Amino acid sequence: MTYKIAILGASGYTGAELVRLLAGHPSMEIAALTGERKAGLAMDDVYPHLRHMDLPALTRIEDVDFSDIDLAFCALPHATSQAVIKDLPSTLKVVDLSADFRLRDPAEYEKWYGQPHSAVDIQPTAVYGLTEFYRDDIKAARLVAGTGCNAATGQFILRPLIAAGVIDLDRIVLDLKVAVSGAGRSLKEHLLYGELEDNAFGYSLGGKHRHLGEFDQEFSKLAGRPVKIQFTPHLIPATRGILATAYVDGEASAIHYALADAYLNEPFIKVLPIGQAPAMKHVRASNFCHIGVVADRIEGRSIVIATLDNLTKGSSGQAIQNANLMLGIEETAGLMSAPVYP
Amino acid sequence: MTYKIAILGASGYTGAELVRLLAGHPSMEIAALTGERKAGLAMDDVYPHLRHMDLPALTRIEDVDFSDIDLAFCALPHATSQAVIKDLPSTLKVVDLSADFRLRDPAEYEKWYGQPHSAVDIQPTAVYGLTEFYRDDIKAARLVAGTGCNAATGQFILRPLIAAGVIDLDRIVLDLKVAVSGAGRSLKEHLLYGELEDNAFGYSLGGKHRHLGEFDQEFSKLAGRPVKIQFTPHLIPATRGILATAYVDGEASAIHYALADAYLNEPFIKVLPIGQAPAMKHVRASNFCHIGVVADRIEGRSIVIATLDNLTKGSSGQAIQNANLMLGIEETAGLMSAPVYP
Amino acid sequence: MTYKIAILGASGYTGAELVRLLAGHPSMEIAALTGERKAGLAMDDVYPHLRHMDLPALTRIEDVDFSDIDLAFCALPHATSQAVIKDLPSTLKVVDLSADFRLRDPAEYEKWYGQPHSAVDIQPTAVYGLTEFYRDDIKAARLVAGTGCNAATGQFILRPLIAAGVIDLDRIVLDLKVAVSGAGRSLKEHLLYGELEDNAFGYSLGGKHRHLGEFDQEFSKLAGRPVKIQFTPHLIPATRGILATAYVDGEASAIHYALADAYLNEPFIKVLPIGQAPAMKHVRASNFCHIGVVADRIEGRSIVIATLDNLTKGSSGQAIQNANLMLGIEETAGLMSAPVYP
Amino acid sequence: MTYKIAILGASGYTGAELVRLLAGHPSMEIAALTGERKAGLAMDDVYPHLRHMDLPALTRIEDVDFSDIDLAFCALPHATSQAVIKDLPSTLKVVDLSADFRLRDPAEYEKWYGQPHSAVDIQPTAVYGLTEFYRDDIKAARLVAGTGCNAATGQFILRPLIAAGVIDLDRIVLDLKVAVSGAGRSLKEHLLYGELEDNAFGYSLGGKHRHLGEFDQEFSKLAGRPVKIQFTPHLIPATRGILATAYVDGEASAIHYALADAYLNEPFIKVLPIGQAPAMKHVRASNFCHIGVVADRIEGRSIVIATLDNLTKGSSGQAIQNANLMLGIEETAGLMSAPVYP
Repeated sequence: MTYKIAILGASGYTGAELVRLLAGHPSMEIAALTGERKAGLAMDDVYPHLRHMDLPALTRIEDVDFSDIDLAFCALPHATSQAVIKDLPSTLKVVDLSADFRLRDPAEYEKWYGQPHSAVDIQPTAVYGLTEFYRDDIKAARLVAGTGCNAATGQFILRPLIAAGVIDLDRIVLDLKVAVSGAGRSLKEHLLYGELEDNAFGYSLGGKHRHLGEFDQEFSKLAGRPVKIQFTPHLIPATRGILATAYVDGEASAIHYALADAYLNEPFIKVLPIGQAPAMKHVRASNFCHIGVVADRIEGRSIVIATLDNLTKGSSGQAIQNANLMLGIEETAGLMSAPVYP
Repeated sequence: MTYKIAILGASGYTGAELVRLLAGHPSMEIAALTGERKAGLAMDDVYPHLRHMDLPALTRIEDVDFSDIDLAFCALPHATSQAVIKDLPSTLKVVDLSADFRLRDPAEYEKWYGQPHSAVDIQPTAVYGLTEFYRDDIKAARLVAGTGCNAATGQFILRPLIAAGVIDLDRIVLDLKVAVSGAGRSLKEHLLYGELEDNAFGYSLGGKHRHLGEFDQEFSKLAGRPVKIQFTPHLIPATRGILATAYVDGEASAIHYALADAYLNEPFIKVLPIGQAPAMKHVRASNFCHIGVVADRIEGRSIVIATLDNLTKGSSGQAIQNANLMLGIEETAGLMSAPVYP
Repeated sequence: MTYKIAILGASGYTGAELVRLLAGHPSMEIAALTGERKAGLAMDDVYPHLRHMDLPALTRIEDVDFSDIDLAFCALPHATSQAVIKDLPSTLKVVDLSADFRLRDPAEYEKWYGQPHSAVDIQPTAVYGLTEFYRDDIKAARLVAGTGCNAATGQFILRPLIAAGVIDLDRIVLDLKVAVSGAGRSLKEHLLYGELEDNAFGYSLGGKHRHLGEFDQEFSKLAGRPVKIQFTPHLIPATRGILATAYVDGEASAIHYALADAYLNEPFIKVLPIGQAPAMKHVRASNFCHIGVVADRIEGRSIVIATLDNLTKGSSGQAIQNANLMLGIEETAGLMSAPVYP
Repeated sequence: MTYKIAILGASGYTGAELVRLLAGHPSMEIAALTGERKAGLAMDDVYPHLRHMDLPALTRIEDVDFSDIDLAFCALPHATSQAVIKDLPSTLKVVDLSADFRLRDPAEYEKWYGQPHSAVDIQPTAVYGLTEFYRDDIKAARLVAGTGCNAATGQFILRPLIAAGVIDLDRIVLDLKVAVSGAGRSLKEHLLYGELEDNAFGYSLGGKHRHLGEFDQEFSKLAGRPVKIQFTPHLIPATRGILATAYVDGEASAIHYALADAYLNEPFIKVLPIGQAPAMKHVRASNFCHIGVVADRIEGRSIVIATLDNLTKGSSGQAIQNANLMLGIEETAGLMSAPVYP
């Protein structure tokens, strides 16, 4: 069976990544692509790398006939997404890639995003889209909220450690090196090639990054008590990928065991032998996440490093993984492509 | 039906790219991987990005049981390849990715590669692997010689123009911008990150590049008289891709027509509307080639620009395309993945 | 003696490069910096890399007291520059880095820049700022028009060859590989890091690049008859630098002699031994230009490659070199810093 | 007065950087350059970017007449350096850029470098070359040991905090993002362009990096008790620069005050206003170090980020700063060039 798919907001990077991945999907077919400002254009006017594909032209959302659509990916900007989703047919399955439905608590949403949520009635129905930990809920969900890409990376490291009780919850430092596509195709000075080449800098420092809302929500729920981590992302001169280094208080062997155990049967999460560390390029353009554990020379402290591609496992690949579950397709369908190296 | 595949010389970039592409191939299965200096290692020791795959360990060639193999890709270094291939079972289908069987004339081989050919008896049996132009021969071949990546790019531009008689054969300038993976994983100073970042330079200048042997052979055969082009490759700070700019004497409209006509039904070669030019990143990690034609302000002169990924369409993708034909599989099988962008 | 300098339009890349170079200049002192949209800001708010310098804050042009200024560098956008310069005190020496005063003929200006010139009365007084060829005029000039960075690179190759009569004037192809800072700090999609990494593409194809106006003017004047070259720039993933490859009909030895002879005593132009080619990174962040000549395998044809840093020798360094001459300072003052490598 | 300088081991990156910086030094003159494997070559055969300089050819160390030399920079590989320095005239002033004389304790040296020190008699005479903290000793020294580039960056952050007693000495995490030139011009697979582009990974994980020997020695001495930090360097796709992120337990205001106070009159160390963070490119190719302090959202915790260019302030610039002091020259001579941006 082939399911008909709409991608709302197809002109951004996560939209283009969805199209790329769906090109190889055995049972999904792109039936509609929308882009408000690009409506009327062919997709290959916006993304010439898709020139060989036979794709519908970009339209406005209002021009999509949703009666024909089995599932919609919503790759719209934050805040826009909630306004659109609340007006979609209530029977339509939706995977949202924006930040709009990640936080359960409207007050938390307002705190981190600076404005009240405009779809508070459907907010409780959304399932948090970290597939490996919400699989059953996702299968049954009508609306799944894709996670932040940084939030996914950090949780892949920390959830099993919190669950297993092998680290000190009050001493978690998460230092991220992130590639530039996480910021999307937006025209900002610090994203220019000439500015970023040979550069590196921290941003949203001191606990201001919005993905902390997700960390707080998820880790506190998991631990049954408030958990606050330190989280500092740094932009580096790369296009795709996140490398997260976690500094934790805990024994490396127990940590490694907890991770290896948690991900034993996971098709996309690969835990390296203890003492080995992953490299960002080893997962590029794929849905895989590699995790490594190393004991620090200071007894009782460990370093855990995880890496994934922010556009794939951190966003569009995760979205398809969730959509597979929602539609009753094999979870890995369309997602087993090997990373592109070099 | 699933064919059993051996990759000889799997530890280089073209070997790794073959594995990546075969991971998504519906009817090929990797049965053997060899790497003389890495024999005994798991493939993911050499290429950790393949960690999720269930692959045979690297062995020596002498340890492969070829009776079990339907087709071997030979991704060995130049000169090594001919020594190995002449000892392979004569019934085994072989796609060679080295330069060893590209030139028909042993004297030409010796001129460009500086040593006599050591397998002169099987040299005539090899078919030149530029799929779009040798399709029927390839279907019937036992041994196919993959083309040079630069040679492929240049021929995709020039063959239809020579065949159609729309350009002056004595005034062809081909200026290439090539990414670094074309040089393989070899340890050379000018390939270091610190040396190549913010750098660009010509190499093999003045007609010394070995791919000229291929150009001379193919263009002269096609034109029925000697054709010599000017060809200057430049290394640029990029990992994958070739962008070739051809300066020719000929009318842009006739040139565009000849190209559009030649590639009308080709699944991988896309001719852009006249006046548009391709970008290297638009074909990255894919088997596609984009070609654009622009009229120069000087009447009767035109610029034709083509781009492809040297590791895919320029090498391992082309090899699989040829293997598909040799095995009677759909030509595009395993090769329709969309380019990775950004 | 120390001269007081104003930089009008200091918030762009060429403005920042002027400040960087003047930081090491023995006899110039920055007395005023302007930036209309950034007026009121400190220079290190706009360019934190200048944090250690004691610089005047950015002001509006109308707030500069020019009676105090010996020379103004005008690093304003095209078209703005002419509007500003015509209102500056007529006794003030001005080096303009924009395109506004490069073309002598108002009709040519209008043809290439799409609008009539608004300062036609002072246009004839401007001297074309290619120092090595207009040295005496520049010494006596009140207004010097900095050349285009691509135009400078191409002329360093071609002027001596045209002057010496050693090439065919009707068969000149100039293929440029240019780094991204030539486009300035402007917010355009194709200048984003994620778009340009692993990318390369031609632009202004077919003779549409505005620097052709300069080539036409200068080469025709030099040759005493119309000369039209083919000129195709390509953007590559690099921040600083231009590498120009010229394909010419002429003997390499005569070409090399003409270049070596022309630049024998030039402090900034270095002609390599025949057969050697320059690399873009070898002149990075410096005022030097390296030129190499190689004979093609086709008799009577040659390849000449030149490289310079577009922001230094191609723009701000050239401007200071000209200012030195205008003020009677040693021509090389402040400009002999070695390139930054790696 | 002009001092005559020898650079031993001029063919590596730190050697080339010394030449670059000395090109602009008002009172040092390069009298000898050595390179054992490149002896006999001109310096511009090895580094064509120095083509414009009039430099002595590379010789063997044994061919240098040291009677003529006022000071030698020793940019030799680790271990080689000690063997060479012990045989240099005892009156010759030496700045060593290797790791050989950084550690006071021969046992510590052997522990970190895996072999006994071969010049134990002169080891005690060496002064640790972190200029800002050993200025008086350096002025009087005959032999100064340049610091590790990572070690310098970390100490610029942590020394004032340890001295002021404003942080918890048992909870210091130092996460570094380092550019590739720190590894020198060595031919290693992971330093290739194709491998490092779009990549990032930790190395020497868990406390194995040799610069920890320097941190342990210096911080313990300063604190008067053993201090062990956690230190994890990560390679990123950049050529020059180190960005160090320190996670400390301490109040941001006290930390900022301690840093601002310590560096108030330092010409090269710039402390940013509290809450601001530095960017690696803002110090590129310069001798400056920028430091920023941000309070974490968790009370009592702070993030301190510092950046410098590993080849300049982290190595060759520091070496010249020290040489200036040893020769009684102005400390900043030859070192005030502005960073190269973009």
